[in-house]
Amino acid sequence: MQSLYSSAPLTATLAAAEGPDTGDTAWLLAATALVLLMTPGLALFYGGMVRTKSVLNMLLMSFVSIALVTVVWLLAGYSLAFGDDAFAGLIGGFDHLGLAGIGPQTLTGTVPTLLFTTFQLTFAILTTALISGAIADRTKFAAWLVFVPLWALLVYVPVAHWVWGPDGWISSSLGALDFAGGLVVEIASGASGLALVLVIGPRIGFKKDAMRPHNLPMVLMGAGLLWFGWLGFNGGSALGANGLAAASLLNTLLAGCTGLLGWLFVEQRRDGHPTTFGAASGAVAGLVAITPACGVVGVLGAAVVGLAAGVVCSYAVAWKFRFDYDDSLDVVGVHLVGGVVGTLLIGLFATATMTEGAEGLFYGGGLAQLGKQTVAVLVVAAYTFAVTYGIGKAIDKLMGFRASAEDEQTGLDQTHHAETAYDHGVLVSPMKGSNAS
Amino acid sequence: MQSLYSSAPLTATLAAAEGPDTGDTAWLLAATALVLLMTPGLALFYGGMVRTKSVLNMLLMSFVSIALVTVVWLLAGYSLAFGDDAFAGLIGGFDHLGLAGIGPQTLTGTVPTLLFTTFQLTFAILTTALISGAIADRTKFAAWLVFVPLWALLVYVPVAHWVWGPDGWISSSLGALDFAGGLVVEIASGASGLALVLVIGPRIGFKKDAMRPHNLPMVLMGAGLLWFGWLGFNGGSALGANGLAAASLLNTLLAGCTGLLGWLFVEQRRDGHPTTFGAASGAVAGLVAITPACGVVGVLGAAVVGLAAGVVCSYAVAWKFRFDYDDSLDVVGVHLVGGVVGTLLIGLFATATMTEGAEGLFYGGGLAQLGKQTVAVLVVAAYTFAVTYGIGKAIDKLMGFRASAEDEQTGLDQTHHAETAYDHGVLVSPMKGSNAS
Amino acid sequence: MQSLYSSAPLTATLAAAEGPDTGDTAWLLAATALVLLMTPGLALFYGGMVRTKSVLNMLLMSFVSIALVTVVWLLAGYSLAFGDDAFAGLIGGFDHLGLAGIGPQTLTGTVPTLLFTTFQLTFAILTTALISGAIADRTKFAAWLVFVPLWALLVYVPVAHWVWGPDGWISSSLGALDFAGGLVVEIASGASGLALVLVIGPRIGFKKDAMRPHNLPMVLMGAGLLWFGWLGFNGGSALGANGLAAASLLNTLLAGCTGLLGWLFVEQRRDGHPTTFGAASGAVAGLVAITPACGVVGVLGAAVVGLAAGVVCSYAVAWKFRFDYDDSLDVVGVHLVGGVVGTLLIGLFATATMTEGAEGLFYGGGLAQLGKQTVAVLVVAAYTFAVTYGIGKAIDKLMGFRASAEDEQTGLDQTHHAETAYDHGVLVSPMKGSNAS
Repeated sequence: MQSLYSSAPLTATLAAAEGPDTGDTAWLLAATALVLLMTPGLALFYGGMVRTKSVLNMLLMSFVSIALVTVVWLLAGYSLAFGDDAFAGLIGGFDHLGLAGIGPQTLTGTVPTLLFTTFQLTFAILTTALISGAIADRTKFAAWLVFVPLWALLVYVPVAHWVWGPDGWISSSLGALDFAGGLVVEIASGASGLALVLVIGPRIGFKKDAMRPHNLPMVLMGAGLLWFGWLGFNGGSALGANGLAAASLLNTLLAGCTGLLGWLFVEQRRDGHPTTFGAASGAVAGLVAITPACGVVGVLGAAVVGLAAGVVCSYAVAWKFRFDYDDSLDVVGVHLVGGVVGTLLIGLFATATMTEGAEGLFYGGGLAQLGKQTVAVLVVAAYTFAVTYGIGKAIDKLMGFRASAEDEQTGLDQTHHAETAYDHGVLVSPMKGSNAS
Repeated sequence: MQSLYSSAPLTATLAAAEGPDTGDTAWLLAATALVLLMTPGLALFYGGMVRTKSVLNMLLMSFVSIALVTVVWLLAGYSLAFGDDAFAGLIGGFDHLGLAGIGPQTLTGTVPTLLFTTFQLTFAILTTALISGAIADRTKFAAWLVFVPLWALLVYVPVAHWVWGPDGWISSSLGALDFAGGLVVEIASGASGLALVLVIGPRIGFKKDAMRPHNLPMVLMGAGLLWFGWLGFNGGSALGANGLAAASLLNTLLAGCTGLLGWLFVEQRRDGHPTTFGAASGAVAGLVAITPACGVVGVLGAAVVGLAAGVVCSYAVAWKFRFDYDDSLDVVGVHLVGGVVGTLLIGLFATATMTEGAEGLFYGGGLAQLGKQTVAVLVVAAYTFAVTYGIGKAIDKLMGFRASAEDEQTGLDQTHHAETAYDHGVLVSPMKGSNAS
Repeated sequence: MQSLYSSAPLTATLAAAEGPDTGDTAWLLAATALVLLMTPGLALFYGGMVRTKSVLNMLLMSFVSIALVTVVWLLAGYSLAFGDDAFAGLIGGFDHLGLAGIGPQTLTGTVPTLLFTTFQLTFAILTTALISGAIADRTKFAAWLVFVPLWALLVYVPVAHWVWGPDGWISSSLGALDFAGGLVVEIASGASGLALVLVIGPRIGFKKDAMRPHNLPMVLMGAGLLWFGWLGFNGGSALGANGLAAASLLNTLLAGCTGLLGWLFVEQRRDGHPTTFGAASGAVAGLVAITPACGVVGVLGAAVVGLAAGVVCSYAVAWKFRFDYDDSLDVVGVHLVGGVVGTLLIGLFATATMTEGAEGLFYGGGLAQLGKQTVAVLVVAAYTFAVTYGIGKAIDKLMGFRASAEDEQTGLDQTHHAETAYDHGVLVSPMKGSNAS
């Protein structure tokens, strides 16, 4: 369990004769592949939501995050996040810069350390890419290229250390629980998305023009790939092929389902019809909220966490219109809000069957765990918001974070990348028996 | 092997010191993720086949099945299907309602019971979603929401118990073989699709208007994801990482291939050209047919099963025009017919190398196994058809199962969900060097 | 490690009591599914690149390769590639034709032989399908159906035996390294693509008309699926769940990233803007180059291999315009060139930490390994080019390899398959609040 991980020696090299547990390793290899797929899945999810004129830019923001975060992570991020604690549970040391001291035989727990590193890397990638949805359609691509490595290093890495690193203060001193990334992934990306939106400002035409998803089947396909990958994200966070992984997998599937149902229920009541876009959003909201909780709550807890997130987020996505921040693809409304819901509900639903100790209010643990969760939420949200705002402002001053109004209106695909997404050219003559006939 | 599963104790809790086999668990975790992906894959497969005006509705029918079946399964379905037999091999008991008595440490065979539960859940989801293809384009969404949980509970669950549950009569008393779901998945969904079509009636314009797939690349993408997931569906049904899983995986790949070739061969002979739609359909037909057989036949048997299904189904999909039932996306022609082909051919090709006993006609076993397979096919087809017809009629009486003619003609996306799939808006000005120039 | 594989007994049947290592088997089962998905992924990658009028034909060339190569492989390919050497390290024997002598209990190393067979089969499928990109838009479909089995048997199978088969001369006598297919997959498909292009000639309008990708999001989605599957391709080539698999997985991810960055860097410098198409191409180029090297170089080596491939291939794809060969979708520019880059760089970056012996120039091994790699590259490129050219010429003589000019101009989808990819029919009336308003 990641949240208890810090009590184990990080890079204990067992005798070669023992080697890794092949079953645990097999699952983590597969889970790593699943999590990597989430970023292309996210690219489709986001890409389908924007207008035709900037879909490629949206896709590219995700793909380039894969590349940049990987380089930063291997150079320094892994060492600073998961190396032995260097200072007060706040940051790891320099021992493993460039993966120094780690070979194919090195183990972390029962799996190769290189695999643990790569699994964690795929988390860092996805988290960074998530932010791009908040600032869709209007961000200068060069600024994003500068932002990504800075954010991964200055925001993601410290928070990962606090929560999952050896002696990280949130898990070790505070005792808050975050199984697979409510704090590290969801709140961090959501609060950072909000910060960037405030730096960059709304899209031209926000609240006036229709900005409908240009391709909803693409959104649904992205949601399907995300859901699939999330089983590796959460199930893999058990770092082994065991009952905890199984429980996390089931909780993840279930919370996605109740999130979907909760969102559709609100839509039906509020708007009179359930939408496919709502189904995709609700599933993602449930998945977001169960991420911190999947390994610490039971099946009933998972159902409630997902349902709560589906309902709450279905309202939260409208806050941007009321409070005038253009969180274009609802990173705040889904990831920040959903992450907070899930992280806090651990305080109510954590069960000792899963946690080997910590218990929530409804499982005999009193209010203590809820307090710890609340502190962790506040600190992580504040830190990630503040540092991201600082990075955003600095980049904006240095080179401008936002595309020119002309580029934005023409579309970033043509102006930034000299491409258009679709080119159906001279239409073939309709066939006999076409739907058009 | 699922068909022999009932002889093992269902929820034997081993000492914690022993725990699950990590390798078996790793494969089943991955396989579960693969099977879950099949439902979004099916959504694309189906979504590409319908007309533009109802693609979202089609996608949503699949996604909402994930959510509803999951809830029903955890509340009651798992217990009734896989709990200890309560009555004559017909239904399981109430011991595990809400997963009562099952924790992260509980084992089924060598894997966590929570994982076995989830793996089986993904089967129930997919089977239910399959039915939606038969009634595409004209079904009232609210009726589908009522149908799904009823069907999962009254149709899927009993049949799963008969075939795979402890002391289920089809495996234990009759001795018919169904490794991964020819009866439980394919025939059940296909016969049920036929029943619903008879309740609901044909689309407006059936046999008159062209109703061509609006997006064939989406169909092919869906077929690709289905094929990928099917390796987990069939290979995972070995419930372990072993030679049986390997054989099932290979047989599954092979039968998809011979199915594809068989269908294209018929098209070439009959129509003068092979189509991509035929390739996708043929692969799926082969995969359907090998589902019951993948763990009980050898490689030659798998090749024949796939080929036979490809050829037979390529003709069977035209029966709807002759007999006037509008099985819109060929659930009957592919899943019912393919499922029957595969389940019966076990009677010819089952080999003791795989089954540890049962043998088909061509492998020295006489006609006994074929007889058992035939009885199982008839009973499952009759039961699932009849009960589904009853459910369908009841819903139709209660609330109407079919959308209004006006909604159907305008398209369900707009009328039921207030959405349209694609919105390319003001086209960007064609770039220099466009294909259109 | 595949390149050392030949020293192990191929089909050692262990006592049933021992059986396969479930963890190793679990990973190889998952990896096999991942590699199978690469071919549908490739279909999308290629399909998005062609013009609307032949996208289905492009998809079908990949799907039909799955079917045909599977049949050929099981009948003869596996035995000739991986059966005991029959003659001088050049070809395997007939012992396992039709998988004779191999049952569910037979093992190869620690995994079932049927699984090893299937894993290798998915490589043969993908490699064959790769070639189709070079001859897109103008190939007679019937000719492709003849070409595929011949190529798999006469080109892929021998080269696979040389490199990975028992006592294959390239690994055993020469001592060149190819971990996951730089020679067998990338150079073989790339050189063969070039040969076929020379047989078939350029598309009508080559160098005159714009031939822009009709759907770039589809290209990116294909690239995402390829990247995902490549983790199974390369990581699975360790044939077990261990540190070598982990290192290969990480190297594969990293090289894709540096390939992407290298290509975008060149575009920015050369053209003034980075493109999404370039990002996809660069990632694939890096993945191609790391394929032979992922299990024999360290993390620094992987970064350099990927970067070098990204930069070199970004220039190499323009050679077709200078030297007038219409390698339509850049099979030569990416797979041949990237494969050569990666295979040669092993001579510089191979490290004994990974190889258990062989060392490149920069790791204390002198020039010996580079020499071996160079010989292997030249022989494999020459053999695959020559034999493919011969097969192509023979087919061209026999039945014509190229579609008629009329078919090509109308589009192969309509003329060969009587289909069109998209049919949006009568457009639904724009909704209130459409982007078009």
